[in-house]
This record gives sequence, structure tokens and C-alpha cells, in this order.
Amino acid sequence: MGGKRRQGKGGVEGGDVEHTAKALTNMKVGESKEDCSKDLFGICPMHQSQSLEGPNYTEIHDLFDEKYVDQEICVRARLHRSRAKGKLCFIVLRERQYLLQCVLSSGEKVSKAMLKFAGNISKESIVDVHGVVRVSPVPIEGCFPDNIELHVAKVFVISASSPILPFQIEDAMRTDEENDAVNNNLSRVNQDTRLDNRFIDLRTPANQAIYRVEHGVVHLFMNYLDDHGFTMIHTPKIIGGASEGGANVFKFQYFNSEACLAQSPQLYKQMAIAADFGRVYTIGGVFRAEDSNTHRHLCEFVGLDLEIAFKTHYHEVVDLIADMFVSIFKGLQSQYAAEIEAVGKQYKAEPFEFTEPTLKLKFAEGIKMLREAGWDVEEFGDLSTPAEKFLGKLVKEKYKTDFYILDKFPLAIRPFYTMPDPHNEALSNSYDFFMRGEEIMSGAQRIHDPEFLTERAKAHGIDVKTIQSYIDSFRYGCPPHAGGGIGLERVTMLFLGLDNIRKVSMFPRDPKRLAP
Amino acid sequence: MGGKRRQGKGGVEGGDVEHTAKALTNMKVGESKEDCSKDLFGICPMHQSQSLEGPNYTEIHDLFDEKYVDQEICVRARLHRSRAKGKLCFIVLRERQYLLQCVLSSGEKVSKAMLKFAGNISKESIVDVHGVVRVSPVPIEGCFPDNIELHVAKVFVISASSPILPFQIEDAMRTDEENDAVNNNLSRVNQDTRLDNRFIDLRTPANQAIYRVEHGVVHLFMNYLDDHGFTMIHTPKIIGGASEGGANVFKFQYFNSEACLAQSPQLYKQMAIAADFGRVYTIGGVFRAEDSNTHRHLCEFVGLDLEIAFKTHYHEVVDLIADMFVSIFKGLQSQYAAEIEAVGKQYKAEPFEFTEPTLKLKFAEGIKMLREAGWDVEEFGDLSTPAEKFLGKLVKEKYKTDFYILDKFPLAIRPFYTMPDPHNEALSNSYDFFMRGEEIMSGAQRIHDPEFLTERAKAHGIDVKTIQSYIDSFRYGCPPHAGGGIGLERVTMLFLGLDNIRKVSMFPRDPKRLAP
Repeated sequence: MGGKRRQGKGGVEGGDVEHTAKALTNMKVGESKEDCSKDLFGICPMHQSQSLEGPNYTEIHDLFDEKYVDQEICVRARLHRSRAKGKLCFIVLRERQYLLQCVLSSGEKVSKAMLKFAGNISKESIVDVHGVVRVSPVPIEGCFPDNIELHVAKVFVISASSPILPFQIEDAMRTDEENDAVNNNLSRVNQDTRLDNRFIDLRTPANQAIYRVEHGVVHLFMNYLDDHGFTMIHTPKIIGGASEGGANVFKFQYFNSEACLAQSPQLYKQMAIAADFGRVYTIGGVFRAEDSNTHRHLCEFVGLDLEIAFKTHYHEVVDLIADMFVSIFKGLQSQYAAEIEAVGKQYKAEPFEFTEPTLKLKFAEGIKMLREAGWDVEEFGDLSTPAEKFLGKLVKEKYKTDFYILDKFPLAIRPFYTMPDPHNEALSNSYDFFMRGEEIMSGAQRIHDPEFLTERAKAHGIDVKTIQSYIDSFRYGCPPHAGGGIGLERVTMLFLGLDNIRKVSMFPRDPKRLAP
Repeated sequence: MGGKRRQGKGGVEGGDVEHTAKALTNMKVGESKEDCSKDLFGICPMHQSQSLEGPNYTEIHDLFDEKYVDQEICVRARLHRSRAKGKLCFIVLRERQYLLQCVLSSGEKVSKAMLKFAGNISKESIVDVHGVVRVSPVPIEGCFPDNIELHVAKVFVISASSPILPFQIEDAMRTDEENDAVNNNLSRVNQDTRLDNRFIDLRTPANQAIYRVEHGVVHLFMNYLDDHGFTMIHTPKIIGGASEGGANVFKFQYFNSEACLAQSPQLYKQMAIAADFGRVYTIGGVFRAEDSNTHRHLCEFVGLDLEIAFKTHYHEVVDLIADMFVSIFKGLQSQYAAEIEAVGKQYKAEPFEFTEPTLKLKFAEGIKMLREAGWDVEEFGDLSTPAEKFLGKLVKEKYKTDFYILDKFPLAIRPFYTMPDPHNEALSNSYDFFMRGEEIMSGAQRIHDPEFLTERAKAHGIDVKTIQSYIDSFRYGCPPHAGGGIGLERVTMLFLGLDNIRKVSMFPRDPKRLAP
């Protein structure tokens, strides 16, 4: 238990982080009595909340405010890089997309030892830097804010990084264009290396911004629904039977019975409707044991699911969901502009475009557009991913929108619980929503009549006994209802124009990845 | 495919829901040409969104507004009960906790057949009732609003309930006191019957309100954190190794490897801190394969987890979380007063009390209070559930609060990653939060130094190899941080003063229950 580090009381003493300590021999405070910078630098003992007292900290992003100029401040941030150069040492501190230049200049209060110490702190260490904010005479290249710098009075290492990183943050921050330039001698960081060291990879400005945008999607989704009378519910992930067909499901032993992971909260959302909640949504993990290794499939993703009892026509639901998406897109563009810009700096993309009201095309119209463009597609068949993408392009050209709805899918290609169209028995009251030509939500009016649901299940070759409790939940009165399931990661990916769903899943799970 | 029902175009024709139909022989519209109520009642064909046109619907809870008096309205709601009485028929419609009396009076526009039809609609059917709102000369017993009634012009069944219910909603709505009254001849609905038929049980006013309050907890939790610079993250539920010790974990096959269900998002929250997100929270399923059959354990519950990089002392985190809880409690009391009252009507409880600032006791003080009350408790031992509950009573008596914090738990009874107290090596920088004497959150400052973390893991007898990636995530600089994990269901249960966690989990999972 006892150890020198843990006895420190806030005073500065030599830390025992091996690598940094080695680089800093003879630099422990107090060892050189003549050091004019005594007590002004060093490695802090392990932070154990030794004292309730401490400096007032300022965040780098607050320094855009002019009131800090010529003020003494203290910043805790990550050391992005440092460079000693004669009597000077430049340190760049990083906090998300913000980079602050700090300058040490050897003199009355900064000893050579202190300069050397500062120049040797390993990249990615967490440091406390005290100093005075000064306006810079020239813009500081690569910094943000670039018009000020911190004239350093004290520097302490709070948590030292190992000096050998799995990859350099600067390498991970580069655009494809920069990487692709000929003869550039730059190291590329491939996706697996990034994901293997995700807690480092996530430090890049683009990644910091991506997950704030993803937060924004959830936040705006919930705000809209909370304002429209929805109740948030929580549905179990451990279920007794497969929620959507028996394949592609993770199975396990649950005490004395067999269980599996829910592939969808469908049944539970519908039970909440049968239980008079009227309008419900749920946010949670969705699990698919699908051996798909594509840019847009995950074995675990976050579902934003909603279900709504409607009165006259399922288009009440379609229109509400469309309006909700528009509110999400607008909210992202207005409240997350800085983050969208930060992502765009590394990953170039066309801005996401949408129209109001949302374009609603019939499935048959989509087929017609594809056929006119020379595609050989079936009238009542499912669209392939390339066909969907191409249709997205056609729609974008014709209607200037990256967001649209396909309505009235053929009945035969939808799940058994989908309500048939009342006027054309080959069609159904079902719809998909698309962003940049990729499906982000699938939904339908559900069959709420137990006898007819039984009939449809049989027509699909489903053993009715296995879904009896699902069917029975409609036996005691259930309002007509419709809903849909949205993949959070797909929405984030496509809104930002990214090319791989692993860029928007913090810790992705695919058939080949179960760590970290 | 085709069936008579699905050819309807909004017109009224005989439905084929067997039971109701039997009770309604000869009542199909149009069969009796002399019926003065022709087209004014009947069973609608299955609702397939036949038409975009329909009546304007009013919600029962809107009818508290006087502007509806003497207006013609249409309501879609559940038939709570109906009773024919000579030339009159009384129907009570239900929408959550609201009950509206409707009256049919045989005469010029209401035929005997219509009266009989209305009196025979099975309870729990979804119906559309058209009529004029009239002020009632006397308060209507058991209705809410009780000062108005609907004089019925038309009544249609939208979705008929089977006439034999697994239990009566009125039986499920009763208080314990009413059930316990001697010689009352009342049917009790036991918990398993309720849970087996959850989509019916959830229709009671108390249940409708409970899940709205639970929504409120999540909503207020997120609002507070969003206002305080937090990022919401999503952590995987499928993980490669046990997240907290190897026992009590659900294991399964993940393609070619072994996986398990996360018992906590701990590692991922901490990685997000090591990745510079600063303040994060996550909401999601937490899984425990624990064979505990108690009033407060579930095998799957909703975790509200948060983790915060702090600057000087972990009490920054403790105080923020305490402030967040106070904001949740205040928000519930102000924004969910009607729901809290609705729950209280069935489940009596003392109102939840709390003080500001939140009471923070040292663990040692708790031990002292218990000893002074005659309890034989150890200085460095864990508190038993009865001891915790009793301490809660002592605290309530002395400090008039149902909410308090125990700080500085003995190091020996906390997980290996808990930061020791810097001044007393038997203690730790860890804390539990309590509501009505039961733990609702456990948390601590975490060890962010990889060497010391290794040392502590070894001291706990943990094979360091199995947690190497966890340890390594602190090797590249990590700010000091603390956090905690809150059980959503426990917060809801204890805030409302309920006695069983199954009352606040919509579809609970325990060692004996995997359905529905």
C-alpha cells in the first residue's frame, strides 16, 4: 500500500513514471539549491485529491475572450508537442480542437534546468501550465487561438505519457489528400491501429467533434419527442426468443433457460402502445449476429426506436418522423456548426442538404426513376444497396435533397407484421427513410389485429406457437400504430458524409472486432 | 391475402372479432333498415389507414378546458366499463388516469339496437365516441374530469378486446388498504399475473404515471449534464472479458470468440476520459448474472453512468453529482406533480425529502451513529442492507433528509481501481449515495496511474494479464477522474417510495423471469 507517491501532500517531488523520470534526472525540485526555478516545475506526485485547495483553472477554448489578455492563468491540458530552441522552449497544449502555444524563455525566473525539463516532457502528458496570456505579434501557425500565447511561469506534469506512442496524433489528424500527396514520407495510421488504441485515436479534433455531433443527434431526437408527448421507455435486451426471425441472433444460457440478445425493441414498443402509452421511444443497444463486413454494418449499434398510436392514417406518423429529422438536421447545423467544421477539416464532405417539407416518393416512383436511368429493377423486389445509392443520386439531382422517404413498399419484401395497403394488396403501409442514398430508418404501420396477424405469420411460414405471446398482446384492444427504428451511427455517418460506420461508433463491434 | 375487412374504405361494416360479434348479432349497420341509428354505431373494419380524412380527435385530458362545453367532439379511448340501464347506457372511457362518463339515451337518434350495442362492447376495447360535452348537474363519482359528461351521438369499435381479461383493471388499480379490508370479496392481482400480462397491467393510472416519472428522471439527468458540458457516449454491451470480476456474467459465443455482457460501462467511461472527453455520461443496459431474488435486484437494469475529469479534489465530482440529484428531485416535484400524485393514490408513501446542500457524512460517522444506536458494526467492514436501512432512519431523524452521501469508505471493501485516501491508507476516495436508506449510486476517484493500478490489482489477487488493456489505457497520460453508476430503477422506486423494483422496470428480468 504505502508508497512515496501517495504520501505527497500537494508539494512537488519526483514522480516515478519510469520513462519521463529517466529523461529528467537531476531535475527534481530542491535538489539543486541554486536553481532559480525551484518549485516552478517538476513532476507532481500521483494526484490523490491531496488538498481541497488548488489554482483556478482556465480552459483553452475560453481564451478567445480578450479579457484574459495580460492575465495570469493556469491551464490543465495535454502536451501536444514541445521544442527547445536555444534559450527558448515552445510548448503547444491541446484541448479538443484547440491548440495553445506556450513559451518559456530562459532568464531570471526560468532556469536552464526548467527549460530542459519542459522540452523533455513526453507528448500526450497531462500538464498544468501557469503563465500570463500575451497577444502574439504574428499569427501562430497551426494554433487555435492563433493570436495569443502563454508566457510560462510554472509547468508541472500531472500524468506523464509513455514517450513511445502507438502512433502520433498528428499522423492521425491528417486528411486523405495530405496522406495521398506523392513522396510525402508521412506515416499513415490505418483503421485497425486506430481502433486498437481507441483512447488515443479519439483525441484527434475530428473524433472529439464526431462524438459531440452524435450526442447532438440523440439530444435533438429526444428534445423533439419530449416536446411532442412521447414517453421514453426502456426495453429488455435479454429476451426469451429471437425478436425478428431466428437467424442472426446471439444466444446464451440464462440461469436454467435459453436467452438471446434483442435484435430490435419492436415487440416491447408495440406492447407499450397496447398498454396506452400512445407515443413512445427508446434508445439502446441492438444486436445482430450477422457476418457482414461492410462500411455500414455493426454487430452492435444504438437504436433510436419510436412507436406511435395514430388516429386516421399512418402518414400522421411518417410526417411526424420527417419533421423530427428536419428538426435534428437544423439543430445540428445551428448548434453544432463548430463541430461539423472540425470534422470537415479532416474528412471533406459536401454539406448535407434537405428540403421542407420532406420529399415523399412512392416506391413505384423510385423504381420508375431507376428504370428510366437504365437500371434493371423489379417492380416488387427489394432494392440492392447500389440501386439505393444510385436512386439517392437521381433524387439529389432532381429534387436537391439528401433526405427523402420511400413509401408504399411491396408487401412481399416486408416483415409479416406489416400492414397491407388497403387499396392494393401487393403493397404495404411501410416506408424507409434515406440519407445520401442510404437507408437510415425502416418502418411501417403494424398489424394490430390478432387474427389477421396470425394469418400473415402463417403466410410467411412462421410457426405461430413461437410468437403466440406477441400475437396475444393485441387481443385486449390495441390502437392502430406505426413506428420505425433508426440507426444512430448511420445518421451521424451520413449527416457528416463519412465513409465508414466505424468512424462514428466509439467502440465498434463487427464480426472481427470485440476489443477494446 | 384479401379479406372482407381489408376492403373497407372507412365505411362501417361488421368486424369479425369473434366474441364481440357474437354479442352483437343483428346489429350490423344497414341490416335493419328501420334503425334510426343507422350509420351511428358499429364495428369498424380493421384500421388500415383506408382514408386520409377523419374526424378531429380530442384527448380526454384536454376536456378540463371549459371551452369544450356544449361542443361536439370525438374521442378515441379505451372503454373502461359500460352499463345499460333501462333507456340509458353509461360508458366510462379511460385515457391514462383520466375517466370520462358518456351517456346514451334511447330516443329519436339512439335506437334500442344502438343502446344494446354500446352496453355490450367488451371492456378494454378501443372505441371512437362522438358526442356533445355537457356540464353534469352533479359530480360524477369515480370520473376525472367529474364535472362533465359526453352525450353520445355515435359509437364505433376500433379494436375490440376479448371479453375475458386475464384480470380486471379495476382489481389492478386498488390500494393495499382496500385489498386488506376484511370480508371485501375483492380479487387481488398478484405480481406474477401482472407481469405475465404486462401490456394490460401497465394500463393502470399508477403504472402510466410511474413510467412517466421514470422518463422524468432520465430527462432531468440528461438536462443537467448537458447544461454542464457533458458528452453522452454509447459503450458496448458485448465485451471480450468480464468488466468487473469474472463471476456473475452472462457468457456467449461471438463468432469465433467468447464474449460476455457488460456488467458496467466503467472501462469505457474511463477510456473516454483518457481520450479527453472530460465529462461523459452514458445510459444503457447493465447485466448481472446474479442469482438474487430480492426487492431491489434485477439481472438487467438501466445504468445512468457518469465520469468526470476533475482538477483539484474528487469532491468537485461528488458535489456536482449531489447538485444533479437535487436538480432531478426538484424537477420531478415541479414538473411531474400530477404523476407523483397518481402513483400515490394507489401506492401510499411519505413524500421524498431532501436538504440543500446535500448531507455528506463520513463513513466513520455512519458507523458511529449505528454503534450509538446499539448496532454491532465493524469500523472497516461493509454495511449490511439492514444496517444501511437503519442508518437511513437515523439520518432522517437527525438531519430530516431522505438523501445523503457516505464518503470515505474503507479501502479494503472497494474495487481494486479505487484511489486510496492520501492521508489514511485504510480509507479511500470513494462514496455511496443513498435514498431512503438504500444505495442508489456507488462511485470513487479511480486510479489513473498504470503502475499503481497494477500494484493494486495484484494486491487484490487479480491476474494482471486479464486486465492489461485496461491498465494500458492510462499509459499515455490521463487526467485524474472520478465518477459513479446510478441504477435508474432504484432512483425511481425510492423517490416514489415503492417497495419493489419490479414496479419500476417495464419488463423486468430476474433469475426467474425472462418474459414477456
